[in-house]
Amino acid sequence: MPSSNAAMVMAGPGAPLELEQRAVPEPGAGEAVVRVRAVSLNYHDLVNLLGLIDGPWPRVPMTDGAGEVVAVAPDVHGLSVGDRVIGAFHPTWLAGPPTPVAKRSCPGDTGDGWLQQQVAFPAAALVPIPDALSFDEAATLPCAGTTAWSSLREADLRPGATVVTQGTGGVSMLAVQLAKAHGATVIATSSSDEKLARARELGADHTVNYRTTPDWEKEVRALTGGRGADLVIDVAGQETLGRSVRAVRMGGTVTVTGILSGVGAAEVPVAQVMTRNIRLIGVTTGSAATLGDLCAALAANGIRPPISHVLGWDEVPEAVRVMNAGEHVGKVVLHIP
Amino acid sequence: MPSSNAAMVMAGPGAPLELEQRAVPEPGAGEAVVRVRAVSLNYHDLVNLLGLIDGPWPRVPMTDGAGEVVAVAPDVHGLSVGDRVIGAFHPTWLAGPPTPVAKRSCPGDTGDGWLQQQVAFPAAALVPIPDALSFDEAATLPCAGTTAWSSLREADLRPGATVVTQGTGGVSMLAVQLAKAHGATVIATSSSDEKLARARELGADHTVNYRTTPDWEKEVRALTGGRGADLVIDVAGQETLGRSVRAVRMGGTVTVTGILSGVGAAEVPVAQVMTRNIRLIGVTTGSAATLGDLCAALAANGIRPPISHVLGWDEVPEAVRVMNAGEHVGKVVLHIP
Amino acid sequence: MPSSNAAMVMAGPGAPLELEQRAVPEPGAGEAVVRVRAVSLNYHDLVNLLGLIDGPWPRVPMTDGAGEVVAVAPDVHGLSVGDRVIGAFHPTWLAGPPTPVAKRSCPGDTGDGWLQQQVAFPAAALVPIPDALSFDEAATLPCAGTTAWSSLREADLRPGATVVTQGTGGVSMLAVQLAKAHGATVIATSSSDEKLARARELGADHTVNYRTTPDWEKEVRALTGGRGADLVIDVAGQETLGRSVRAVRMGGTVTVTGILSGVGAAEVPVAQVMTRNIRLIGVTTGSAATLGDLCAALAANGIRPPISHVLGWDEVPEAVRVMNAGEHVGKVVLHIP
Amino acid sequence: MPSSNAAMVMAGPGAPLELEQRAVPEPGAGEAVVRVRAVSLNYHDLVNLLGLIDGPWPRVPMTDGAGEVVAVAPDVHGLSVGDRVIGAFHPTWLAGPPTPVAKRSCPGDTGDGWLQQQVAFPAAALVPIPDALSFDEAATLPCAGTTAWSSLREADLRPGATVVTQGTGGVSMLAVQLAKAHGATVIATSSSDEKLARARELGADHTVNYRTTPDWEKEVRALTGGRGADLVIDVAGQETLGRSVRAVRMGGTVTVTGILSGVGAAEVPVAQVMTRNIRLIGVTTGSAATLGDLCAALAANGIRPPISHVLGWDEVPEAVRVMNAGEHVGKVVLHIP
Repeated sequence: MPSSNAAMVMAGPGAPLELEQRAVPEPGAGEAVVRVRAVSLNYHDLVNLLGLIDGPWPRVPMTDGAGEVVAVAPDVHGLSVGDRVIGAFHPTWLAGPPTPVAKRSCPGDTGDGWLQQQVAFPAAALVPIPDALSFDEAATLPCAGTTAWSSLREADLRPGATVVTQGTGGVSMLAVQLAKAHGATVIATSSSDEKLARARELGADHTVNYRTTPDWEKEVRALTGGRGADLVIDVAGQETLGRSVRAVRMGGTVTVTGILSGVGAAEVPVAQVMTRNIRLIGVTTGSAATLGDLCAALAANGIRPPISHVLGWDEVPEAVRVMNAGEHVGKVVLHIP
Repeated sequence: MPSSNAAMVMAGPGAPLELEQRAVPEPGAGEAVVRVRAVSLNYHDLVNLLGLIDGPWPRVPMTDGAGEVVAVAPDVHGLSVGDRVIGAFHPTWLAGPPTPVAKRSCPGDTGDGWLQQQVAFPAAALVPIPDALSFDEAATLPCAGTTAWSSLREADLRPGATVVTQGTGGVSMLAVQLAKAHGATVIATSSSDEKLARARELGADHTVNYRTTPDWEKEVRALTGGRGADLVIDVAGQETLGRSVRAVRMGGTVTVTGILSGVGAAEVPVAQVMTRNIRLIGVTTGSAATLGDLCAALAANGIRPPISHVLGWDEVPEAVRVMNAGEHVGKVVLHIP
Repeated sequence: MPSSNAAMVMAGPGAPLELEQRAVPEPGAGEAVVRVRAVSLNYHDLVNLLGLIDGPWPRVPMTDGAGEVVAVAPDVHGLSVGDRVIGAFHPTWLAGPPTPVAKRSCPGDTGDGWLQQQVAFPAAALVPIPDALSFDEAATLPCAGTTAWSSLREADLRPGATVVTQGTGGVSMLAVQLAKAHGATVIATSSSDEKLARARELGADHTVNYRTTPDWEKEVRALTGGRGADLVIDVAGQETLGRSVRAVRMGGTVTVTGILSGVGAAEVPVAQVMTRNIRLIGVTTGSAATLGDLCAALAANGIRPPISHVLGWDEVPEAVRVMNAGEHVGKVVLHIP
Repeated sequence: MPSSNAAMVMAGPGAPLELEQRAVPEPGAGEAVVRVRAVSLNYHDLVNLLGLIDGPWPRVPMTDGAGEVVAVAPDVHGLSVGDRVIGAFHPTWLAGPPTPVAKRSCPGDTGDGWLQQQVAFPAAALVPIPDALSFDEAATLPCAGTTAWSSLREADLRPGATVVTQGTGGVSMLAVQLAKAHGATVIATSSSDEKLARARELGADHTVNYRTTPDWEKEVRALTGGRGADLVIDVAGQETLGRSVRAVRMGGTVTVTGILSGVGAAEVPVAQVMTRNIRLIGVTTGSAATLGDLCAALAANGIRPPISHVLGWDEVPEAVRVMNAGEHVGKVVLHIP
C-alpha cells in the first residue's frame, strides 16, 4: 500500500491532468478506503475532462473504478480489508428507483473520483467483484454495465424476446451479452462489418450494418417476421430515435440511454408512439443494488465484459482519442500504478 | 324492439350519413344483439366521418355505444336479454396487453358500428353497465374512458401522486375524476377559465390556463414544490410533448394519448428524457377486461362521466361542429331513436 | 430544549422501565438529533418490553417516534433545525425491496429507541411530517402505517377493488382509510359491533362481526357477488389464514402482516391456493421512501390516522394493558415530556 | 386424413377407454379442425381418468395435444391448413390474468379432449409449433410447459437468480431448462441420484437428493451462501411447502404448482412468511398468449422438452402406471394413429 496517495487532478474546467501527491485517506464514518487498480472511461468522463460538468475544483476525475479494500471504519458491516470491490456510480443511490436525492453525488463530478491510488468511499455503495472478473473487467460496470442492465430490466424481457443494440461501445457490447443471458435473440447494428463480427462473437444472432442499410429498422422488422423487436437500446438519440420507434413491436420498448448523435431534440413520430403503444424510457446507470444484481448475473452466466483497450493512467489523452474516433469495441480501461 | 333495423350509413369515404332500413340482425355463434340507445363521439369518429379510415363500404360508423341486450346466441354464457351493456372498442381485444391481432377489429371502421338501432356483437366483448350509470354516460367509456383509465394505470399511481390533464375533452375530464379516485392531486390545464371552473367542479385541485400561462410546465413544477408531476396525460402531442416531459418528476410518466395539435413528429428533449429517466408511453383505449375494471371503479366511487352535449342521431353534423370548435366539456352523445 | 436527556431505559430482558438522565446526544456524521414529542406502540413493542427480542442492554425501547429536529451534522442535506420528522422503522432501509442488510437495524431493538427526549438518528431515514398531521398522528406511521400501506401496494389495487380488514388495531384502521384513498370498497371485520361502527366512520363500506358470523369469508363472497375480495390484509395469521384464502377472488392477494392469533404454523388450503392462483405475501413495514410516500398520500387525501388512547410516557404498563385487552380502536400513543 | 374420426371415449366416471368411430368434425364459427398426432399426460389426466372430475359423459379425455390443421372456418384469420399447432389448456383463456370465465373450459373435462384423431378447436386458442419441435415435444407444453413458464414469470427472475425444482416430472424438468434460459442458477432436488444425473444433463447446476438430505432447504441455503433461493417451484404442496418457505431468500417466491404429496392443508410457518416477506403464489398453466410466449422462448433458446416415455394411445393404463410409479423423467406421451 502506497505511503502517500498519488492522484491525477484537474485544477479547473478543462485543465490538463496533473500528478499530485496527497495524504493517504482515512475512512470516515461508514466508509472504506479502496486501493484503486483500474478505472474505465465513459462518454460522461470525456465531457467531464472538457470541463463541461460543474463541481468543486480542483478535483480528481473518473466515475468508475475497481480495487481492493485497505481500510474500513469501525461502524462498517459486511466489508473487510482485502475485499475486491467496485463503487456505485452514484454512491448515494443504494436501492430503489432514481430520485434527485439518490443521484446527487457522482465521484469525479461532485467530488474526487477514482483516478487516484486510494479513495475513501461509502461502504454501502461498494459492491464485491465476482471471483471470475478481473479488476479491469469490473471497472467497466458502474456506468456502462448498469446502463445496459437497467435497459434490459425496464423492458421486462422474456426469453424469446428480440433486442436491438446500436454500435459497439461499452453499453451496447455488454447489452449483447446480457440480452443473451436473458434468453433473448439479439440484433446488433453498427457502421462497421468488422465490429459486427466482434458483436457476433459476443453472442449477437443477427447483425445489420446501418451504413450499407440505412433503413435498419426495416431490416429489424424483416428479421422478426414483420412483428418488430421487443426492445431497442438506443444510444444515439437525436438521429435514431424515430427509427427505433419504428423498429419495435406494438407495446415494445425503446430505452433512451445515450445522445451520441447530438444534444438537440429528437423528432419522435407521435402517432406511431400512440397507436402502437410504444414505450420510450430514459435509462441511466442504476443503484448499488442494481450493480450487485449485475455482478450476480455476470458470475452466474460466465460473462466477461469486453475490454477494447488497456492504457496507463498517464495515457488519458490517448484514451480520449480512441473513444472520440470510435475505435473501441467494448470498454477503454486505465491501470492505476 | 323495432321490427326493422334503422341504421345511419356512409356509402363511401366522406359520404354523408343516410338513413337506411335493414333487416333485424340475428346473433351468430358467440354473439348477442344489442338495442342501441346512445353513442358517444370521439375524435376518431370525426376522422372516420371524413373518410380517412380504410375499411369496407358502405358501413355504419361509430365505435362507442350503449344499449340493452335483446337476443343472445345459445352458446353464450353470462349474458341475458335485458342486460344493459357497452361494447369494447376492439371486440377482439378481450384481455392482456395490446397486440395487432387483438386490435384488428373496430366497430365503425372494420365493419358496421353503433349508429344503428340494433347491432350484433361478440358477447365476450360486451360489458355490463353499472346500475348508477345511464346509457348516455356508459356510451362515453369504450374509447375515451378506457384511454383515461389506461393512462392512469400505466403510471402505477399512488395516492398522493400528482396528475396533469390537458384541456376539457372526454379523456381529460374523466381522467380528472379517475385520478381523484386514485387518491391523486390533479392539476388541470385549459385555454379557458370557464372550462377550468368545470374541471374544478369535477375534482381538479389546481388549474392552469395555458393561454395566459404558456409555460404551464413551470407552473406544474411550482405547484409540486419543484419536484414535477408524476403523470402528464398528454392529448395534444406535437405541440406539448416537450413541455410535458419537463413537467414531470424524475422517473415520471407522460402518456401519449392524443395528437390534437398535429400529426407530425414531436420534438422530444432527449437529454432530459435520458438523464431524468422519463417514461413516455403510448396509450390508446384498452381491452374488454379494462373496460370492466373501469366500470367497477366508476360504480365504487360514484363517478359519473361528464356529458357535454346530447343530440339526436340525425344531428351528427352539429356534433362534429361542436367538437371541432372545442365547445365541449366532456363528451358529446347522440341518442338512438 | 432540555439540557440533559431524560430516557426510559430497560436494564435487561423484561426489566421495568427506569427513568435515567443521560447526556444530550450530538449528531454524528450524516445524523440529526430529534427532540421527541410522541411515540406510538405496536405489538412489536409489547414483545420487546417482555424481553423477547435480543439486542444490547441496557437500552431505550420503542421503534416509532415523532419530534422536531434540534441539531444536524454539517454533512446533512435537506434537513433543518425545526423540521418536524418521523423516523423509519429500519433506519438502514432507505428504499427498494426488503433485504437482510436493509432490515438489520431497528431503534429500540438493535440500539436505543424513541422513548427518550432526544435521539440521534440517520438524517436520510427521517421523513418530514405533513403539515396537517400532529406529532401524535405522525408517530403512528413508521410501523403500523407503512405495514398498511405496503399491504395495499403489494396487491396492485385498482379503484373499484374490494379490500377486507381484520379487527380495529392500528394497521387495520389505517388500512381502511388508505384503501378508500385507493378508490377501493372496504369490508371491515371485527368481534365488536361498537368497533365496527368506528370502522364505518373511517370509511368502511361494509362490516362483518366475525363473532356472530364466524364464516366471515362466506359473507365476503356474498358481498362481492360471489367473486371474492381482491385483498385481505390478514393480521391474525394462524387462525384466519385459511379463511382469508377462501375470501379472495381468483388471482387475489392475502397479505400476511400479523400473527395475533398465534405463532404456530397456519394451515393453508394448498389446492385452493394453486387452482385459484392466490397470492400470499408476507408484508412488514417499509423503507424510508415508503414512509415518505405514505405521508404524501395522507396529506393529499386529508387522512388523519386514528388515535385510540394518548397516555404519558410513564404510563407504559397501562398502554400495554389496553393493547393486550384489545380495548383500542386505532393506535395507542405516549407523550414525551 | 381419416374419413371417420376414431376416438377414445370414457362412457362415465372411471369407465375404461373404449375406441369409438365418430363423424369427422366440421369447424364451427371461429374454429379449426386439428388432425391429432400426439398427446401428453399430466397428473390432471390421471385424476380425470379416475372419474373424479365432473363434466358431460361420455367424453374424450386428455387436455394436451398437438397436430396439424386440416380445416378452418371461413371467419378464421392467421391459421391455415397444414399448420402445426397445439391447443391452449383453457381455450377460453386467450390472454391476461386468470379469471373464472377464462378458465371455465378445459378439453377432456368440460367437453371432448385430444384423445381422438380429429378435434374441432377455437382457432384463437391454437398456437403454432416452432419448427424445431416435434409433435411429441409440443404436446408436452399446454399444461406442464405453461405451468413451469408461469412459475418463472411470477418470480420476476433476473439472470443470476437461483431457482429450486422438485422431482423430475414434466413441470420440473422443463423448469430446469427454462430457468437456465432466464440466466438463473438451478438447484434440482429428487429422491433419486439417477434422476438427478438427468437433471444435470438438462442444465441443473446443483443437485440435492432429498432422501439422503431430508433437510434439503438447509442445503439450498448453503449453496446460496446463506441467502436462500429466489424461487422454489413447489410441486408437492402439503409435505414440502414449509421447507420451501425456509429455502427462499427474504422477499423470495414459492410458487404453489402441485399437490403431489397430498390434498390436505399444508402447514405454513406464518411468522417466517411475514418477517421475511415471502411470496407464495398459486400457479396453474397459462393463457394462449402465454403458450405462445413459451414456444418463442423454446425456439430462441434451442430447448427441447424432455420426453420420458412414448406409448400408443391404446396403452393409457401403462402410461398411468409409469406416472403413478414415478418412473418418468420428463413427460409421458401417447401417439395417435
